Amino acid sequence: MTPAPVVAATVPSEFELNTWSGERLEQVEQALSRWVTADAPHGVDHGAPAQLVEAMRYAVLDGGKRLRPLLVLAAHEAVCQGDVAQTLDAAMRAACAVELIHAYSLVHDDMPCMDNDVLRRGKPTVHVRFGEASALLAGDALQALAFELLTPQDGSVPETMQARLCALLARAAGSAGMAGGQAIDLASVGLPLSESQLREMHELKTGALLRASVMMGAHCGAPSAQSVAALQIYGSSIGLAFQVVDDILDVTADSSTLGKTAGKDAHNDKPTYVSLMGLQSSQAYARRLLVQAVVALDGSGLAQTQALRALADMVVNRVH
Amino acid sequence: MTPAPVVAATVPSEFELNTWSGERLEQVEQALSRWVTADAPHGVDHGAPAQLVEAMRYAVLDGGKRLRPLLVLAAHEAVCQGDVAQTLDAAMRAACAVELIHAYSLVHDDMPCMDNDVLRRGKPTVHVRFGEASALLAGDALQALAFELLTPQDGSVPETMQARLCALLARAAGSAGMAGGQAIDLASVGLPLSESQLREMHELKTGALLRASVMMGAHCGAPSAQSVAALQIYGSSIGLAFQVVDDILDVTADSSTLGKTAGKDAHNDKPTYVSLMGLQSSQAYARRLLVQAVVALDGSGLAQTQALRALADMVVNRVH
Repeated sequence: MTPAPVVAATVPSEFELNTWSGERLEQVEQALSRWVTADAPHGVDHGAPAQLVEAMRYAVLDGGKRLRPLLVLAAHEAVCQGDVAQTLDAAMRAACAVELIHAYSLVHDDMPCMDNDVLRRGKPTVHVRFGEASALLAGDALQALAFELLTPQDGSVPETMQARLCALLARAAGSAGMAGGQAIDLASVGLPLSESQLREMHELKTGALLRASVMMGAHCGAPSAQSVAALQIYGSSIGLAFQVVDDILDVTADSSTLGKTAGKDAHNDKPTYVSLMGLQSSQAYARRLLVQAVVALDGSGLAQTQALRALADMVVNRVH
Repeated sequence: MTPAPVVAATVPSEFELNTWSGERLEQVEQALSRWVTADAPHGVDHGAPAQLVEAMRYAVLDGGKRLRPLLVLAAHEAVCQGDVAQTLDAAMRAACAVELIHAYSLVHDDMPCMDNDVLRRGKPTVHVRFGEASALLAGDALQALAFELLTPQDGSVPETMQARLCALLARAAGSAGMAGGQAIDLASVGLPLSESQLREMHELKTGALLRASVMMGAHCGAPSAQSVAALQIYGSSIGLAFQVVDDILDVTADSSTLGKTAGKDAHNDKPTYVSLMGLQSSQAYARRLLVQAVVALDGSGLAQTQALRALADMVVNRVH
């Protein structure tokens, strides 16, 4: 039922996404575990209460596809043309910061007053495990921690870069980004949305943070204007494709494959691409967005875009 | 019942706090109204949904003592020795950013899963007025907006200063600051706390953000090491004093004066300074903290500390 990988040929055959992402995911997991603790990210006793940190770690560690961190690292590598060592710490901080924002949004989104979900990544949701008040505070603290990670005081990230990364992340997370998209989503349950309204909602709700992942990775290097413009199109295209495929999987996959409740959107009478344009047209739309992303990379002037291509392919052709 | 203003003499008699703060409060209100909108802070259409922005504005505008913004501006003026014009935009952004963090914390704190409060500043709380889901999202978006305000893309604030301000605010808001303090508060209802445990909780819950207000204002200028050290003691002292006086007012003032439910902490079996050390000792402790703040200013090497002195006095001698 999922779209066939029609443009997989755009990914160089010698590039192995699993190998590439496997190495990076291990580094991301280690970094998250190191930074989401009571004594991080200063290297001294941080003074955070153990119970809150436990809820934060539960929300962040050992789960998730880590698509956003991988996008950060892939964009960083593309812009740095292989010379990543000098700015790798910045990129890893950006990768983890974006994931913290994503993780906090899931914690709050799952709460009874929002989606009231009890299962996430196959585990009880944070509020089920720790109580609603702790879930609320853990989410709040994860958002703040994202900005802590971006502003180390040890000289490892230039302050101009810190400022740029904070600017990108704050705008993607806020009222004109993720939180704004969730508010539109909330207000549109049961309402007929046009395709443009649906797209606008998703561009904020999931698109903004995915696009920011790409742009933050790029700005950990020194991107040309040409590559910035291309990566913006790439980021917007896969951001939208991600949501279209999410809507497709909501009707084509089962809960155990998804690791969350399938068919929920339809059940909740939420507008989706599938409900609006049908399954086949949604699949064709996802494929068009993938082509758009790949074409943007072709015109980016960047040589090492294999990982970005492979991630775009994965976003569209994933099964969960 | 409130402590007598025993050290009011430390404030120069010619300094009028009401005049000083009146002018600045007007500027803060205007700035908040300008920045918490659907088309701020970029100067272009921000794309935030109107309903979310309405809840954010309701949470922020037309209420509150604005103590944190006033501390930012007073510290900025002290460090700048009167030459504030060049960095006034940075200071106003810092002042508003701190207030947004404070406002979001109140929105989330009032929610049913936390304090379940229906009245705030004499108005229905955000979740009563807009629903729980909107309150949750408005709080989340206000936190992100705080970091947007600190990272303008128009060159009005140097990027090194942006990074420093983000670093200070993120640490004060997060798990080792405000959110961490709230988590300890939550976990300690009905438990016997020692004075040191109670102080630790309050140093995080309210102290961290009040201290950060002072430090952010200072770092909008170019503070000497001596003044930074002095302002840290000043900020810690009034941060703690603020909470001690809060506990005193909870038993001595009535709800209409406070603008919130009086006697709530005692009713909720929360540990307070008054429950721990009694009313008289709490009042004496607040006065000692005021003296400590004033002595720190005396040794700061800063000349223009009248506003900081008057604000410290106000924190301890306020009646609501």
